[in-house]
Amino acid sequence: MKKLINSPESVVTDALTGMAEAHPGLLRVDLENKIIYRRQCPTPGKVGLVSGGGSGHEPLHAGFVGYGMLDAACPGEIFTSPVPDQVAEATRAVEGGAGVLYVVKNYTGDVLNFDMAAELCAEDGVEVATVLVNDDVAVKDSLFTAGRRGTGATVFVEKIAGALAEAGAPLAKVARIGEEVNARSRSFGVALAACTVPAAGKPTFDLSDHEVELGIGIHGEPGRTRAPAAPAADIARLALDAIHADRPLSGGNLVMVNGTGATPLAELYIVFAEVAAYMREKGAEPVRALVGNYVTSLDMQGFSITVCTLNDELTRLWDAPVETPALRWGR
Amino acid sequence: MKKLINSPESVVTDALTGMAEAHPGLLRVDLENKIIYRRQCPTPGKVGLVSGGGSGHEPLHAGFVGYGMLDAACPGEIFTSPVPDQVAEATRAVEGGAGVLYVVKNYTGDVLNFDMAAELCAEDGVEVATVLVNDDVAVKDSLFTAGRRGTGATVFVEKIAGALAEAGAPLAKVARIGEEVNARSRSFGVALAACTVPAAGKPTFDLSDHEVELGIGIHGEPGRTRAPAAPAADIARLALDAIHADRPLSGGNLVMVNGTGATPLAELYIVFAEVAAYMREKGAEPVRALVGNYVTSLDMQGFSITVCTLNDELTRLWDAPVETPALRWGR
Repeated sequence: MKKLINSPESVVTDALTGMAEAHPGLLRVDLENKIIYRRQCPTPGKVGLVSGGGSGHEPLHAGFVGYGMLDAACPGEIFTSPVPDQVAEATRAVEGGAGVLYVVKNYTGDVLNFDMAAELCAEDGVEVATVLVNDDVAVKDSLFTAGRRGTGATVFVEKIAGALAEAGAPLAKVARIGEEVNARSRSFGVALAACTVPAAGKPTFDLSDHEVELGIGIHGEPGRTRAPAAPAADIARLALDAIHADRPLSGGNLVMVNGTGATPLAELYIVFAEVAAYMREKGAEPVRALVGNYVTSLDMQGFSITVCTLNDELTRLWDAPVETPALRWGR
Repeated sequence: MKKLINSPESVVTDALTGMAEAHPGLLRVDLENKIIYRRQCPTPGKVGLVSGGGSGHEPLHAGFVGYGMLDAACPGEIFTSPVPDQVAEATRAVEGGAGVLYVVKNYTGDVLNFDMAAELCAEDGVEVATVLVNDDVAVKDSLFTAGRRGTGATVFVEKIAGALAEAGAPLAKVARIGEEVNARSRSFGVALAACTVPAAGKPTFDLSDHEVELGIGIHGEPGRTRAPAAPAADIARLALDAIHADRPLSGGNLVMVNGTGATPLAELYIVFAEVAAYMREKGAEPVRALVGNYVTSLDMQGFSITVCTLNDELTRLWDAPVETPALRWGR
């Protein structure tokens, strides 16, 4: 294993140090508690948004902290949930009088720890609501998860709920739109090769040169099945078939073709071309797109597709200004 | 080899098809001639900016087409120069009456083919100037190159010259500022593992699990030397020593820590943390930063550091609005 790290133990702290150095105008980093804050927070009268989860999925979540998106992100160790005290600390710091929304990916540890943080904060009189993201159609109940896993739709929820919070909406409304985004979103991931967790020092699973893993989880959890390696268009169609079978594609859609860490950008665009063709065959249309590394799994080779059916309100909120390290436009 | 492609022959066309689908508001793609255009072009009275080079370095160059940066990009096949007719076609299409600037990375094929395109266009009365980017301090004369190679500074030249062109400056001034950015920029790259060209089907070089290649080229050309694998901070310092020895670090700097394709974002931030510490030791400061995949080498595992000493004018032009698939802010 070769990794560009100083030691497996210091990966998270060292990376946060670099984030603080690279984005002083956008972020403030509390290294002791491992919390990334929006430069200016709390914003009085605004609902605060807090997310977090295991590290190793960068830019999720720290890269989405900033104007129009998250107020704070709480990274755990690699593929490990943040702890309740950490989340509670972030919650108190971003509370501006209008309550705080948690955006939580559906993994058992994350759900438990964010719930405990919410309880701790309730004792201090901070109102907390939670949007649970569970968009991955690949498997129900998995390693680490009861129910469906939360993956790519997290980016959509954070952006759209963040925009509504920025516009001054109350907590219940911000939570409701986050739930709506999640309900309209579906994802499916594919791995061509596994990732290597620094502390483990070897790939999380073995995959022969002639196979891909369909429905892979973002920590390398098993998917639905393995299939022979095939042209990108065929693999994309297997992913899209799973999404379409779960929630038929229709209307105008926000589409993310996400790289899992070691996938060249050109290959993601090759997948996007097939996604667009497939959607049109089903009478749907991609009207907004993200193509790149947004929810990675360290150095996994692969991709995921996330589709969210838009309406006018969601489109407007998606298009609203955002200024974070990883998503930035219109301001 | 597993690649997310349809066939080695169709990689470039398939990826361009996906780009056109993903960014219809920003780009227009001429699939036949393999040219990516800014959605609206030419812009009457504005200097047109054209760049290009071998594919496999995405988002360079196509991802930098749009408002405030390039008017057109001409991708060749993987690691292969674009052809003169292709560049000439792009030149004529973006010429808005104020001439056209080429931004060319210093590789023999690119230099020859852009020169030939400029001659073809001169016959049609189109005035062309060229900025040759040669920022890589690693080696002088290399596979494919006479003199120094052009790498990360290309992004800085395209952004800053693009901003000045957008502001209405004449061709000579736009060319001059591009040259100034190049003169103030230095880069050094490191590989932990080689990339695999689809048509070749195997890694471009072998590197043991205990070695890194210092001064790697963006096509996997040999660097200065191999060194034992070491903590990220130590490797970053070797790269910075090379840069500092060539042009002493000072003042406020634009710094890019660039991933070569398969490097997790968190690892790039770990490198950035060390870059910031090193610069301060030398009395310099990172005041603007890019951290991510900007000039990749397919799925190479590694990074490069590019430093450009800013002044007030360059800072203002760097901060000016830009709206491309890969760089976007402030508009």
